[in-house]
Amino acid sequence: MSTRKKIGILGASGYTGSDAVRLLARHPNAEIAALTANTHAGKTMADVFPHFFMLDLPRLVEWEKVDWSKLDAVFCGLPHGTTQEIIASVLKANPEIRILDMSADFRLRDKATYAQWYGHEHRAPELQGEAVYGLTEFYREQIKSARLVACPGCYPTAALLALVPLVRAKLVDAGDIVIDAKSGVTGAGRGLKQNTLFSEAGEGLSPYSIGTHRHAPEIEQEIGAAFGAAVTVNFTPHLIPMARGELCTSYVRLNGATSDDLRGTLQQAYRGEPFVHVVEKGVVPQTQNVRGSNYVEIGVFADRIRNRAIVISVIDNLVKGSAGQAIQNMNLMFALPETAGLEQIALFP
Amino acid sequence: MSTRKKIGILGASGYTGSDAVRLLARHPNAEIAALTANTHAGKTMADVFPHFFMLDLPRLVEWEKVDWSKLDAVFCGLPHGTTQEIIASVLKANPEIRILDMSADFRLRDKATYAQWYGHEHRAPELQGEAVYGLTEFYREQIKSARLVACPGCYPTAALLALVPLVRAKLVDAGDIVIDAKSGVTGAGRGLKQNTLFSEAGEGLSPYSIGTHRHAPEIEQEIGAAFGAAVTVNFTPHLIPMARGELCTSYVRLNGATSDDLRGTLQQAYRGEPFVHVVEKGVVPQTQNVRGSNYVEIGVFADRIRNRAIVISVIDNLVKGSAGQAIQNMNLMFALPETAGLEQIALFP
Amino acid sequence: MSTRKKIGILGASGYTGSDAVRLLARHPNAEIAALTANTHAGKTMADVFPHFFMLDLPRLVEWEKVDWSKLDAVFCGLPHGTTQEIIASVLKANPEIRILDMSADFRLRDKATYAQWYGHEHRAPELQGEAVYGLTEFYREQIKSARLVACPGCYPTAALLALVPLVRAKLVDAGDIVIDAKSGVTGAGRGLKQNTLFSEAGEGLSPYSIGTHRHAPEIEQEIGAAFGAAVTVNFTPHLIPMARGELCTSYVRLNGATSDDLRGTLQQAYRGEPFVHVVEKGVVPQTQNVRGSNYVEIGVFADRIRNRAIVISVIDNLVKGSAGQAIQNMNLMFALPETAGLEQIALFP
Amino acid sequence: MSTRKKIGILGASGYTGSDAVRLLARHPNAEIAALTANTHAGKTMADVFPHFFMLDLPRLVEWEKVDWSKLDAVFCGLPHGTTQEIIASVLKANPEIRILDMSADFRLRDKATYAQWYGHEHRAPELQGEAVYGLTEFYREQIKSARLVACPGCYPTAALLALVPLVRAKLVDAGDIVIDAKSGVTGAGRGLKQNTLFSEAGEGLSPYSIGTHRHAPEIEQEIGAAFGAAVTVNFTPHLIPMARGELCTSYVRLNGATSDDLRGTLQQAYRGEPFVHVVEKGVVPQTQNVRGSNYVEIGVFADRIRNRAIVISVIDNLVKGSAGQAIQNMNLMFALPETAGLEQIALFP
Repeated sequence: MSTRKKIGILGASGYTGSDAVRLLARHPNAEIAALTANTHAGKTMADVFPHFFMLDLPRLVEWEKVDWSKLDAVFCGLPHGTTQEIIASVLKANPEIRILDMSADFRLRDKATYAQWYGHEHRAPELQGEAVYGLTEFYREQIKSARLVACPGCYPTAALLALVPLVRAKLVDAGDIVIDAKSGVTGAGRGLKQNTLFSEAGEGLSPYSIGTHRHAPEIEQEIGAAFGAAVTVNFTPHLIPMARGELCTSYVRLNGATSDDLRGTLQQAYRGEPFVHVVEKGVVPQTQNVRGSNYVEIGVFADRIRNRAIVISVIDNLVKGSAGQAIQNMNLMFALPETAGLEQIALFP
Repeated sequence: MSTRKKIGILGASGYTGSDAVRLLARHPNAEIAALTANTHAGKTMADVFPHFFMLDLPRLVEWEKVDWSKLDAVFCGLPHGTTQEIIASVLKANPEIRILDMSADFRLRDKATYAQWYGHEHRAPELQGEAVYGLTEFYREQIKSARLVACPGCYPTAALLALVPLVRAKLVDAGDIVIDAKSGVTGAGRGLKQNTLFSEAGEGLSPYSIGTHRHAPEIEQEIGAAFGAAVTVNFTPHLIPMARGELCTSYVRLNGATSDDLRGTLQQAYRGEPFVHVVEKGVVPQTQNVRGSNYVEIGVFADRIRNRAIVISVIDNLVKGSAGQAIQNMNLMFALPETAGLEQIALFP
Repeated sequence: MSTRKKIGILGASGYTGSDAVRLLARHPNAEIAALTANTHAGKTMADVFPHFFMLDLPRLVEWEKVDWSKLDAVFCGLPHGTTQEIIASVLKANPEIRILDMSADFRLRDKATYAQWYGHEHRAPELQGEAVYGLTEFYREQIKSARLVACPGCYPTAALLALVPLVRAKLVDAGDIVIDAKSGVTGAGRGLKQNTLFSEAGEGLSPYSIGTHRHAPEIEQEIGAAFGAAVTVNFTPHLIPMARGELCTSYVRLNGATSDDLRGTLQQAYRGEPFVHVVEKGVVPQTQNVRGSNYVEIGVFADRIRNRAIVISVIDNLVKGSAGQAIQNMNLMFALPETAGLEQIALFP
Repeated sequence: MSTRKKIGILGASGYTGSDAVRLLARHPNAEIAALTANTHAGKTMADVFPHFFMLDLPRLVEWEKVDWSKLDAVFCGLPHGTTQEIIASVLKANPEIRILDMSADFRLRDKATYAQWYGHEHRAPELQGEAVYGLTEFYREQIKSARLVACPGCYPTAALLALVPLVRAKLVDAGDIVIDAKSGVTGAGRGLKQNTLFSEAGEGLSPYSIGTHRHAPEIEQEIGAAFGAAVTVNFTPHLIPMARGELCTSYVRLNGATSDDLRGTLQQAYRGEPFVHVVEKGVVPQTQNVRGSNYVEIGVFADRIRNRAIVISVIDNLVKGSAGQAIQNMNLMFALPETAGLEQIALFP
């Protein structure tokens, strides 16, 4: 169809890139027109991801070879830290292009916080200022007119969807939030690491990056924005022996509210949202319910400790936590139906 | 849309029923109009499969409560043996309705073979005679005009797609075929069995039903039809610690042909087929490439033993092995595009 | 050897019973002399657990058939609630016998708490008063002379080993403890449940029994005893797609102490303990390190929130969390080396 | 104890090396006196395998630093191809030392076959001639007096234990054997490879090295020796989503014998063997029954094709398939009880 948007994907040989391909290849308004993967340039996409054998896709090229003037939008699945100069270069080549960055490079708005967590000054500070944080449900209006959307990390997506409406409504103490987070192994990417080998990660459970994970400042940025002042949160991730899925168990102190109040506030906040589902009292969210899909489940539970509550949220880390949310944002930017190409139901079992 | 076909699903609380729901709910020409599950009557589908929370589906009812005159087609995911009288009753109520039976009840054409393997005379012998075997790629024309399609078992689908063209072309010895078959645990259904508990099936590997699996006579029926005489095959299934996926490693004796001849014959047989992909020499099929999808991969390899070859075929047992192939057949029966509602790409990872 | 203690195992067809068999069959001072499983009476142990094919074990019998006067000790792996009258009967038949109860029936000392959580009055209240809580590291002296040891639940074992020394030392606020707990699927036992099927529990993650799990009062009993007053804790369990292993991430508020103080206190508390290992700063406990073994790993981490810390503890739920700890207690009761039969190293990978 | 044999382990940072450590650390007659791992020299064993935290082990050193004169035996877990010159050098330094080589370097007796499959001339041809093939059950007497034992590959161990007695007894056609083999992921080692990442190997099933796996000539060497002439076998390995375990489904053509004859012959062949268990008719071997143990299960089944049978054998690839069998051989070489240190029961679940 002539009205399909022409899409390029930077870093198509990683898991976020490939999930963008999986979804965009069946998107009614998109056409994948360029795929880059510098270490695999010259190969077909099916060479690096054989499950794409049935697709007629452009061959992988080096990013320097792409003619950006022919594209309407670019999804960027490059590793953190490598993205800034490339995106700056893409926008210079085609200032009208829309960028959906799935890396971490433009998520932090504060230059000092970026430098502290990433170990160097930001290399495209003007773009850092221009970038819109791509948590669709909270930044929908800004995303529609944005040129560069910094799609949130997977953990921040799960945590913030559960917590931001509660902090905004002042129902919980923003200074006393504990986020126990659990992720499937794809969250660590396709790079070769000993701890993500099947024989190491299978049949076991490991916390990691305790107190040092780079998604913490991102969560704090958005909780702080909702609260109106800087906050510090506890954020403790764990590696779970499953490929996809992410679950945050958030422990909050209440400002006099009940867990039912929290549930009601969340249900109100997400009324009409196509992808966010606040479950009824007594129903327990689980990652199985959203595997492979862009949906989110959130549930609220009373704590046995007085004046505390537990909020549980689940997403698929590669979909709503990355490629799916990027497409949701692209749909907004191009005034397409927000759910276009994103209505797959979870693959269960 | 008024042109959507109205679909009922019998046995919607099992895995084949639920995968039919997953696919039909997003099918552009279908509307799920009735769902039955006698032990769960009165519940919502989301009560028994919470990943369907986002769908607006009819409530589960007993099959006796359905008004069959309002439906265009029925998918039947009932346990083997229970289906014959129910389907007879449905067809009596609405002789125009189309039946996609995903159980084993109408797959065997020979009455004596049925009685031998299932332990009782067939209870709807006229329908047994009428039923068309629903292996789409081989019975496409008969399916188009059929009223009752007996969709093949998952193992037969994987094995027959690999072998039938080779037997037809007389390239292999039909009397000396060994099919070493491997299936994910969903093949055993959602019923409660000790050997399919996570703690029992995980991190382990078990052969089962060696020499006694009911898919053997079904494979023999179709290999025999292709060969022109009765044959006996070796069929040895193994339970693999994964939820979905099925792989058949078929060992064949060659009638003078080479493995390249076999590959060429399969490529010719499936040229133009939307779902069957014969991989190039040296590419190895794997279940990961078809997980959650209706696609099939087939590869041929030389054996180290002279005059023998190895044919490997993979499917998703719940999709091409059950609900997906049933939908493919429904599309044919209603003159819809054969791929309608079935173009999901494998969920990998 | 004539000095081997004669052991009976009640409920040998469950996972805690079978893990007791696995360990006791190779214990240098034990002889398995009786095995009961009322629903499997008459079968061999290898009929119900084929991995015991190499052992020469007594046949499974109904518990009523055992001659208790011939036994030195009994391990009880019966379901909760069924144990009280049976143990009373055993002790009546042989008042000298030692009981290692792996069920929950004698863990709670308070009669009202028992009745509240288990829905009925205790049926052997004198024995309830007599029973010693079998968390070896804290009740070693009482266990040596006990007749009836109520071995702790798996979650309480993991949580209390991490927390009790800190509460005793008044380093943490006993009223503000959050225990985010994660367990492998064997924790749910060998009974047939839909949510523990491979196809349901695999590749997914589910919280369960939020605010209602019966291990909560058990944890509170012991934290309260360490603190000197009743406390309420948050305890939130999650089902992890692995067979064995348990990890508690405990979030604590500090009374002025640092995370290093906590680590030092734990290292001091467990100096000389054969099975409890407090890891060095920066080392992260993981369940892989203790799989199949009686060992425990505990680590302490600074929280990003000021004046808070994170304590992580891991065990194998069937060994230190059940059968292994029971054997450790038996060793004490018979004045054997505490580590006898328990020195297996984790099976990794 | 002064009578413990002093053991060195070459390549202790791999899975076969670490499983040798796991078993030898609890062996009543062994003391681990040296550990090498050139890329990790200077680290503790717990640095590279944290589950060894409770052991007091020598620090990892470069192999060139070991004083071989102080050792009684050396286990070699180095990668294939690197071992020949190192072992030659060790034996030069201490001609009395006993070598248990777990690599493939000395398994093939024929120099031309070695060169063909490994791509270079053997670098220690005299030692190649001296080496005894370490399949304990068949070479027990030669092993007792050997200086260098070439422990078999994991697949050959599983396949040959099932097939050699049948070929020797001339019950099966040695020229028509199909071995469909399935292995857990540890078989691929601890090296970093994309296809053994959790996200790639999990929830999927892949054949590999079809017709080209280096265990094929090893199997053919021993089948040929039993048969009395060179043979070619079909050997087709598959990667299974589990860490440990190996299962061979061997399809054989009978020389007039029945499957019961085969079972009887195997039962006779292994009567009195401590680790090999031929199951009764109708019992199905599964890898769960031997996980973490040195035991072997073998079962025989009638084929539906006349005059054919199916033989199923299971082992733990790292134990009987590698480190365990090496220890079994060491026990023989030092006239220790053959089962010393090897009586662990499978860890199930």
